Amino acid sequence: MLTDSDVERWLREDVGHHDVTNDVPGETTGRLVAKESGVAAGVDAATAVFEYLEVDVTERVADGAGVAPGDALLRVRGPATAVLRGERVVVNVAAHASGVATRTDAAVAAAREVDDNIRVAATRKTTPGLRGVEKRAVAAAGGDTHRLDLSHMVMVKDNHVAELGLTEAIERFRERASFATNVEVEVEGPDAAARAAAAGADVVLLDNMTPAETAAAVDRVRGRDADALTEASGGITVETVPDYAATGVGVISMGGLTHSAPALDLSFRTGGDG
Amino acid sequence: MLTDSDVERWLREDVGHHDVTNDVPGETTGRLVAKESGVAAGVDAATAVFEYLEVDVTERVADGAGVAPGDALLRVRGPATAVLRGERVVVNVAAHASGVATRTDAAVAAAREVDDNIRVAATRKTTPGLRGVEKRAVAAAGGDTHRLDLSHMVMVKDNHVAELGLTEAIERFRERASFATNVEVEVEGPDAAARAAAAGADVVLLDNMTPAETAAAVDRVRGRDADALTEASGGITVETVPDYAATGVGVISMGGLTHSAPALDLSFRTGGDG
Amino acid sequence: MLTDSDVERWLREDVGHHDVTNDVPGETTGRLVAKESGVAAGVDAATAVFEYLEVDVTERVADGAGVAPGDALLRVRGPATAVLRGERVVVNVAAHASGVATRTDAAVAAAREVDDNIRVAATRKTTPGLRGVEKRAVAAAGGDTHRLDLSHMVMVKDNHVAELGLTEAIERFRERASFATNVEVEVEGPDAAARAAAAGADVVLLDNMTPAETAAAVDRVRGRDADALTEASGGITVETVPDYAATGVGVISMGGLTHSAPALDLSFRTGGDG
Amino acid sequence: MLTDSDVERWLREDVGHHDVTNDVPGETTGRLVAKESGVAAGVDAATAVFEYLEVDVTERVADGAGVAPGDALLRVRGPATAVLRGERVVVNVAAHASGVATRTDAAVAAAREVDDNIRVAATRKTTPGLRGVEKRAVAAAGGDTHRLDLSHMVMVKDNHVAELGLTEAIERFRERASFATNVEVEVEGPDAAARAAAAGADVVLLDNMTPAETAAAVDRVRGRDADALTEASGGITVETVPDYAATGVGVISMGGLTHSAPALDLSFRTGGDG
Amino acid sequence: MLTDSDVERWLREDVGHHDVTNDVPGETTGRLVAKESGVAAGVDAATAVFEYLEVDVTERVADGAGVAPGDALLRVRGPATAVLRGERVVVNVAAHASGVATRTDAAVAAAREVDDNIRVAATRKTTPGLRGVEKRAVAAAGGDTHRLDLSHMVMVKDNHVAELGLTEAIERFRERASFATNVEVEVEGPDAAARAAAAGADVVLLDNMTPAETAAAVDRVRGRDADALTEASGGITVETVPDYAATGVGVISMGGLTHSAPALDLSFRTGGDG
Amino acid sequence: MLTDSDVERWLREDVGHHDVTNDVPGETTGRLVAKESGVAAGVDAATAVFEYLEVDVTERVADGAGVAPGDALLRVRGPATAVLRGERVVVNVAAHASGVATRTDAAVAAAREVDDNIRVAATRKTTPGLRGVEKRAVAAAGGDTHRLDLSHMVMVKDNHVAELGLTEAIERFRERASFATNVEVEVEGPDAAARAAAAGADVVLLDNMTPAETAAAVDRVRGRDADALTEASGGITVETVPDYAATGVGVISMGGLTHSAPALDLSFRTGGDG
Repeated sequence: MLTDSDVERWLREDVGHHDVTNDVPGETTGRLVAKESGVAAGVDAATAVFEYLEVDVTERVADGAGVAPGDALLRVRGPATAVLRGERVVVNVAAHASGVATRTDAAVAAAREVDDNIRVAATRKTTPGLRGVEKRAVAAAGGDTHRLDLSHMVMVKDNHVAELGLTEAIERFRERASFATNVEVEVEGPDAAARAAAAGADVVLLDNMTPAETAAAVDRVRGRDADALTEASGGITVETVPDYAATGVGVISMGGLTHSAPALDLSFRTGGDG
Repeated sequence: MLTDSDVERWLREDVGHHDVTNDVPGETTGRLVAKESGVAAGVDAATAVFEYLEVDVTERVADGAGVAPGDALLRVRGPATAVLRGERVVVNVAAHASGVATRTDAAVAAAREVDDNIRVAATRKTTPGLRGVEKRAVAAAGGDTHRLDLSHMVMVKDNHVAELGLTEAIERFRERASFATNVEVEVEGPDAAARAAAAGADVVLLDNMTPAETAAAVDRVRGRDADALTEASGGITVETVPDYAATGVGVISMGGLTHSAPALDLSFRTGGDG
Repeated sequence: MLTDSDVERWLREDVGHHDVTNDVPGETTGRLVAKESGVAAGVDAATAVFEYLEVDVTERVADGAGVAPGDALLRVRGPATAVLRGERVVVNVAAHASGVATRTDAAVAAAREVDDNIRVAATRKTTPGLRGVEKRAVAAAGGDTHRLDLSHMVMVKDNHVAELGLTEAIERFRERASFATNVEVEVEGPDAAARAAAAGADVVLLDNMTPAETAAAVDRVRGRDADALTEASGGITVETVPDYAATGVGVISMGGLTHSAPALDLSFRTGGDG
Repeated sequence: MLTDSDVERWLREDVGHHDVTNDVPGETTGRLVAKESGVAAGVDAATAVFEYLEVDVTERVADGAGVAPGDALLRVRGPATAVLRGERVVVNVAAHASGVATRTDAAVAAAREVDDNIRVAATRKTTPGLRGVEKRAVAAAGGDTHRLDLSHMVMVKDNHVAELGLTEAIERFRERASFATNVEVEVEGPDAAARAAAAGADVVLLDNMTPAETAAAVDRVRGRDADALTEASGGITVETVPDYAATGVGVISMGGLTHSAPALDLSFRTGGDG
Repeated sequence: MLTDSDVERWLREDVGHHDVTNDVPGETTGRLVAKESGVAAGVDAATAVFEYLEVDVTERVADGAGVAPGDALLRVRGPATAVLRGERVVVNVAAHASGVATRTDAAVAAAREVDDNIRVAATRKTTPGLRGVEKRAVAAAGGDTHRLDLSHMVMVKDNHVAELGLTEAIERFRERASFATNVEVEVEGPDAAARAAAAGADVVLLDNMTPAETAAAVDRVRGRDADALTEASGGITVETVPDYAATGVGVISMGGLTHSAPALDLSFRTGGDG
Repeated sequence: MLTDSDVERWLREDVGHHDVTNDVPGETTGRLVAKESGVAAGVDAATAVFEYLEVDVTERVADGAGVAPGDALLRVRGPATAVLRGERVVVNVAAHASGVATRTDAAVAAAREVDDNIRVAATRKTTPGLRGVEKRAVAAAGGDTHRLDLSHMVMVKDNHVAELGLTEAIERFRERASFATNVEVEVEGPDAAARAAAAGADVVLLDNMTPAETAAAVDRVRGRDADALTEASGGITVETVPDYAATGVGVISMGGLTHSAPALDLSFRTGGDG
């Protein structure tokens, strides 16, 4: 969850010790406006910034709402000094989160054209300090958050398998982890995928495979009659999402949803009718 | 500056309350490796993360160094548990900062092809919580940090001018701000640019102008025989940088250096010769 | 994970602004000693406290180790001032965590007498600020951490069911939550248990049932040929654990492992052979 | 005092990055209800949690109030999302603090049956991070907080006496400590008790003595005609309190009031009449 | 900017774990009153303290206002417990900041008697943790904040000059620093002052010179027809300010404005008409 | 106690986001040097600053040591960048604390000329954020810290007396406060002083009395044959200390020791023999 001390840190780094330009008497209104089309996110965070500054948020869209140029994501009314003090941070967090949401939306749409049930997921490749903001932006746009942190789901990696063997590695972590925690196994080929499924992996991560290899691995996993979910990952872009969606894989995950999405172009306008 | 509590916050959000996979006995080595060419940055931050975890950084490149696929940005040796605990955060911060540096480098190169002395600057459109990391990445790649925070330089905006008149607005803020602080004035056309320079602006911000308008404004400012520096800003991309560089403007600033640079593709590899 | 700022907060609240008794020249040794038998935990946290104070931990048991009266949990050497400054906090955190581990161990032993595979789990009823310390103490003693936080696993509660119906509630949260996240459903009788399993719950929480009701519910869930795991919860104590273990339930969870375990009696002794 | 950052830390550790179950529209009411009899405490802290979340606390008992099964400790009204987000932390802190208060109340009652003026005190054996919450719970139930931190009162320990001699140790710390600070001396037998009183101790700590030894020590201290207060400590339980209360000692202190009190059974119920 | 966590830290260090005297029922009023004449500052900070405690500030003077004995700097109304809890911190911060403002006012007045345009500036010699409070107090009294932090303006020091030569040192830092950042050069005699101005320093710091040397250096700088501003620094007091003001120097800076100003005598009175 | 996060906050406020002047290769030495005579304090804090930056403190005086011009308070060796980064904060904290110690030393000396046993104490009128640093500076110079925080000793104020009557006020707070806590009563004349002593005050605060009134009040308190200690407070300066010391009062307290002591003139010099 976003806390006051997150907001405080963002404001402090932007304002510095003594700003002479924002010392403006009276009240003002303002609105956060889209300058291009996309999916709004970070509106919760923007609201928290203004509330920390005791500025009223009088109207706002929900995270996940589609916006067109000129649309307001939120409207505020409050002391001019406080509104001006918050505006840059508000634009920065909302433009970043909306950029993540907009790219997520594009990836989900591309995948759903091919397969209605497939999930498009983010990864742990998030911007330090913004894990929650970015994961919630992904969710708001219809994406899947994937692991929220290391403790959320066990990932059995190749070095674990090298050391213990596939079956024993899965068993060891299954035992050490809570019943509440799923176990995913990273594999690099169809054979290993089948073995991981047979050994009881909840999810099989098909890492850095081509669409053809992915399809083969998905078949092998199904052939074991296993319940295991399959996930494709590694260098997948919005452009290549359809190729992976056609493989029958259950989840497509993309680091680029969070680490490389360009900001959505937003601006903050004070005055007028708020 | 980066502090231990920044590092702590990044690690805490990534690790969670109980991770069962990183509990590995013994020591290990590891290296942060580039998977594509670019400019390294965030290596200071990555080093701070490992040092917080009491992992030795045995070798590292400087922020600003060029890297090719396979090059190591840093090498470490330490307890396996600590190395594994830090690796994701290290990749995330370095890939983000290196993405900023790589795009800055491209923009600087594009500008310098046209004008050897022009500066390419970032803006305050940074990722909340990462102001310092991003500004230092810009500087490491030869860019200009521009204002570090609101208190660093006064920006006279159109609403100030609307309220007070151009000359009086500059005078008021000149008086309120320290002698240590420069005063920049945002203008929207060549006429206003000339008037701002005449009124004593240290920097004249030519906002959202075309290259032709920018060139005209630069001429008008020079025509006043003024010392004022000129800055072009607003929607400039790496592609359009040369057009602006050709206008004679002193500084080109681009929000996209920080808010929309894709991450540089980095990975962390444990074991081997470190 | 435990951070320096946790340690700092613990020390600050115990030391205050000016303590005149710990200003002792020279080096000393010390050891944290058990005064009764039990299971050690919080040794990681105790180590972190001493390391923050730059006291060397020269020897230590692992969290989860059994200890008898007189056994040392850890030994240190360092500046006397620092050792004395840390000792009370170290005893407090280790005695608390070891109390949790000791009670967990008793509950696990009681359950395993009846059923070798049953899990004994903690809950989210932890001491504010010590979630991680307590959960890791539970794990160290062979217990199951259960949900680490609200985001770790979905819990469908009776008010959700009342509003949406059982099947739709499960479906809604299944869709909203990540594929990485399991869905548990809280039920109050055998019928609802069977329906929850049929509707695809990963875990069925049999809340506040007698052992007989629990056994009936477990049978009904199995009768659906479902993979669903069953969990018994609500007022279960170390004394009543065997009755529940005999029902065939998969998990027994007990808030009392964390919120009501008495501290293990530990003391810190300075000097001597360390 | 309890601060917003304490509350924030408690909430953050319980909620995690993305909880899908508490996203409920509209307002709700709720109440924190006792499921067993005891003494309420932590209601101030619970109030602070809800206020941080902008939930109105519409009614509450004072810390120290007696409660019976079904009694509400507090009632709230606010956004359902916020109420649900706070409930677990509120139960955890109040159940813990009320457990401390309830045990304190029992110990005070047991002591007062024997001696109307005797004080029953907690120690510094508190749960890390909860020093203030626990000490205030003790006070709310009629107990004595004893030292709030190391700086609050000087404790002359056996190692100080071994090094300096009893009289000189007392004098040294009396001189180093403020006039605002009392000096207590830990002794292990009646003789030392008498000498400590004669040497000017404000309080003589009779450590780990039997009731008979305690009575003898109290007599010896009184025999010196000294003003020194006497305190019995070391393994005293609610059961043995009366034996110590009968010795004439001034204070009985018990680490178990804070480190081993079971939580009072409380639950939070949403909806209904609030 | 001042944040809630600053306020929280100030309150926590003053209140401790359990204060029994401020537990007073009902509402009260109070006012912060000057006991001697001076210039008010820190009223923003005092207001923030009371607002953190949910006490209404019903009336207040602006930072920078002159006050006479008996004048109220602010008036409050709120829960008696909260008013009493905040009063000491409020007096402490406002008395300190007002002391800084009062001395600044005296220095500015002394300088302006001689030269209407001269600036009197603080330095980075501020009280750790109070940089912003002190700098804003200086500004409120008509002083100049000077550098807010190391990153605000480059200071070329004698060791830089020794290593690189004057001209190259200026060039190097001019290139490394942003165009937004001025470059000041510290010199120890009139010759070096002239060379620094010629080499393009924005500001020349005339360090530890007598008034006569200062006047000579100012002449030399002007003689270069340079735009460079001159600053005198080093042991200047309110008494010697006029001598420096008469030299024609542009800025007089005094560490003593912040590090040695005595507190303004203020007290807080509760009750009465608020 | 001083924590890493205090140090971090001091450094962060001084350094800002990007300082270009301290990026100096190699190692350096440095020393903190007195430029005038006084009493050193804050050396612990200065050491903590350098240790946070991983600079070795190779030699240092103890807090409380007398220093003459040219004397080094501490010497360091470490990376030049780190030494330069810390120097300003180190000077600021040590100069402030040493100023407090130097004034305390003067007040103690003035008082001891008259009465060998009298205590000279600070008050709670400290600089926000520096309570501990200042109290420890007072103690290092032979002063008495007085109350460290509100919870340390009960102060019965005139408004308490007005509401409850003197005797009942003392009794009420005696009962509410721990046996570990002394009770001081603020009085405004000799009669009240005598009554307070008779009613069992541990300390009687003679507030804002002349030396003659103080002497009278001290006599009246002694006349009651009471153990009560007496304290004179209110506008006492180093100059008037002897007059109060001659009254027989036990403690003289002075807010000016902490809130109005000028900084001791210190500077930091890099290079040379360290």
